[in-house]
Amino acid sequence: MAIITLLSDFDLQDGYVAAMKGAIATLAPDARIIDITHRIPRQDVAAARFQLLTTCPYFPAGTIHVAVVDPGVGTRRRAIALRTATATFVGPDNGLFGGVLAGGVLAAVELGERRFWRTENPSTTFHGRDIFAPVAAHLASGVGLEQLGPSIDPQTLVELELPDWSPSADGGSGVIQAIDHFGNLITNIPAQATAARSWRLTVGEHELRAVTTYGEGELGEAVALVGSHGFIEIAVSGGSAAAMLALRPGDPVEFVWQEAEP
Amino acid sequence: MAIITLLSDFDLQDGYVAAMKGAIATLAPDARIIDITHRIPRQDVAAARFQLLTTCPYFPAGTIHVAVVDPGVGTRRRAIALRTATATFVGPDNGLFGGVLAGGVLAAVELGERRFWRTENPSTTFHGRDIFAPVAAHLASGVGLEQLGPSIDPQTLVELELPDWSPSADGGSGVIQAIDHFGNLITNIPAQATAARSWRLTVGEHELRAVTTYGEGELGEAVALVGSHGFIEIAVSGGSAAAMLALRPGDPVEFVWQEAEP
Amino acid sequence: MAIITLLSDFDLQDGYVAAMKGAIATLAPDARIIDITHRIPRQDVAAARFQLLTTCPYFPAGTIHVAVVDPGVGTRRRAIALRTATATFVGPDNGLFGGVLAGGVLAAVELGERRFWRTENPSTTFHGRDIFAPVAAHLASGVGLEQLGPSIDPQTLVELELPDWSPSADGGSGVIQAIDHFGNLITNIPAQATAARSWRLTVGEHELRAVTTYGEGELGEAVALVGSHGFIEIAVSGGSAAAMLALRPGDPVEFVWQEAEP
Repeated sequence: MAIITLLSDFDLQDGYVAAMKGAIATLAPDARIIDITHRIPRQDVAAARFQLLTTCPYFPAGTIHVAVVDPGVGTRRRAIALRTATATFVGPDNGLFGGVLAGGVLAAVELGERRFWRTENPSTTFHGRDIFAPVAAHLASGVGLEQLGPSIDPQTLVELELPDWSPSADGGSGVIQAIDHFGNLITNIPAQATAARSWRLTVGEHELRAVTTYGEGELGEAVALVGSHGFIEIAVSGGSAAAMLALRPGDPVEFVWQEAEP
Repeated sequence: MAIITLLSDFDLQDGYVAAMKGAIATLAPDARIIDITHRIPRQDVAAARFQLLTTCPYFPAGTIHVAVVDPGVGTRRRAIALRTATATFVGPDNGLFGGVLAGGVLAAVELGERRFWRTENPSTTFHGRDIFAPVAAHLASGVGLEQLGPSIDPQTLVELELPDWSPSADGGSGVIQAIDHFGNLITNIPAQATAARSWRLTVGEHELRAVTTYGEGELGEAVALVGSHGFIEIAVSGGSAAAMLALRPGDPVEFVWQEAEP
Repeated sequence: MAIITLLSDFDLQDGYVAAMKGAIATLAPDARIIDITHRIPRQDVAAARFQLLTTCPYFPAGTIHVAVVDPGVGTRRRAIALRTATATFVGPDNGLFGGVLAGGVLAAVELGERRFWRTENPSTTFHGRDIFAPVAAHLASGVGLEQLGPSIDPQTLVELELPDWSPSADGGSGVIQAIDHFGNLITNIPAQATAARSWRLTVGEHELRAVTTYGEGELGEAVALVGSHGFIEIAVSGGSAAAMLALRPGDPVEFVWQEAEP
């Protein structure tokens, strides 16, 4: 039984997500559907990219991920499917899948074969329902990626230009890349960057000590730690780091070694 | 494997939706449950009717739709099930299902047979859990509609009195019937009304050009187009039409031909 | 097919819930996953306890309930699984499961066996994904509770100290224990306390008549009734009791007999 995940900026008040699920259930009755999230901020492709990048690895090999944050729906942006060693992705070619490209793309196609759409005359405003979900259902039912349309050079897939982190003699610097429901600020500095040495994090005028668990912080203290996404994050015990520090995605952070190199 | 969909105004913070799912899973372990939405505004039967009308067509034939927006729960409003050519609907007889009646009702019953309820003494405040979900589970397990209780004349089913659209010599007029998460304003004017001719939409003091995709609008421009529900809708590229135009359900709109009839 | 339910304070904007589902689907592809709610207020263990207590009874016997409201994640609070006559519960030992302990615990264990975790080096901030969900998946796949780690004396399981209701000569008193999406105020006074006699409810300066259905109240009138959770609750017909009466969890309520004892 194939798994199809759904991610979008549709939120849950309308029937849009359900229409996609109905379209899938019609074409692939045995496929299992699991939501990643539908509460990506409207048209925020970078936020969607982050959630895909950090959530998809926990799904079984072979999972089909459909992502629809698609401000360019109906325009000339490409509709695509791509395959990596562990998963298949279906959606618009607007940078959504940028996070997984670095891992290697085995194949990519443009979704040109209308017989795998829900209708040959899809809505110009809702490709999620009429193209992406049906294509995923067909993939789940055994249709091959290469049947979906002409092959694309993976080098041409759209990637967002996002700030990178960088090491320095004293430690390294990066930016905040996401804020979660708890107000935790997730940086783009990978856990490995700080492994095996003591460090502190500086952000704006604040200097934060590194801890191992949320519970180690004093109540109301902002601390830095390795979060579950595998990046350095900032948390406030019993509170919201985003609210307390008034920081946003893109704001710079720095980590500084606390000891001489061993 | 039968599909049961759920729609309600319960939102997701409480265990109400889960209690319905538990009740279904207890009685029909193999039935598949898919949410349409649980974020219908509290007790807004018309909003629920719109979501059912525009979402149910995308589900496989034979799907059982349970809808619970039920301000009259426990009073004398009827609890019903009805069948159309493609689906079965279970819920209160308060106009929720009005949108699907026009397509033809094959049979309707009042849910009088308590042996198909979860308990013979249902909560007076939560028929979703104790009557509607269990009845849907029994339907999914093969119980016939006619077994659920006495037959009802479909002509007696409650329908909401909603404003209709109407054609005119110059074009036609209607109202806004729904606002989605993106702030798109969905009118009650069907796509076919404007097919094959050029038109503009006027709403309040605004005159909007007709486009084909969201992306055709200038950033911040309000435009009119055929939306995915099959109705004329108003959208703002990169923004919210509802916020920008300050319009609400019920507000009037007009479309006007731009060319002489061919 | 085993059912695994999920409850948390993660809300739905991030990929946290989906990561748990992916972890389960990887280990137990046939297990069915149903959400109870993920909108428990952040770190509100008492609110989570209430939702579990009042929702779990509607699930089939044998259901595995995973609950993750876990301010102490990564600290010395125990990670546990416990079994009652009808269900199994997995999560932190912080009072979350207090509501079900009174019904009798058949067995409880501390989750010490790392081979049933997703990884032997779990994230210190997300045991839901790395310990609780995987353990539930193993339980669903047939692993015995006793295999998960050392046995715990059920008497040592954490229970919250919550106010109780108490009967009096004139009726009884209790507190508001929860507020639902509709603004209904759910007290901790069980329905049986008022059965078979007439009563009124007093709360602050308000005296409310007891009714049987929401619909019996006049529009805008606050009334008291037996709610679907099995507790006395306060509702306002067509409105929000919480907003109108400005009450909160913990606020005292009293019911008073209206007639001499028969």
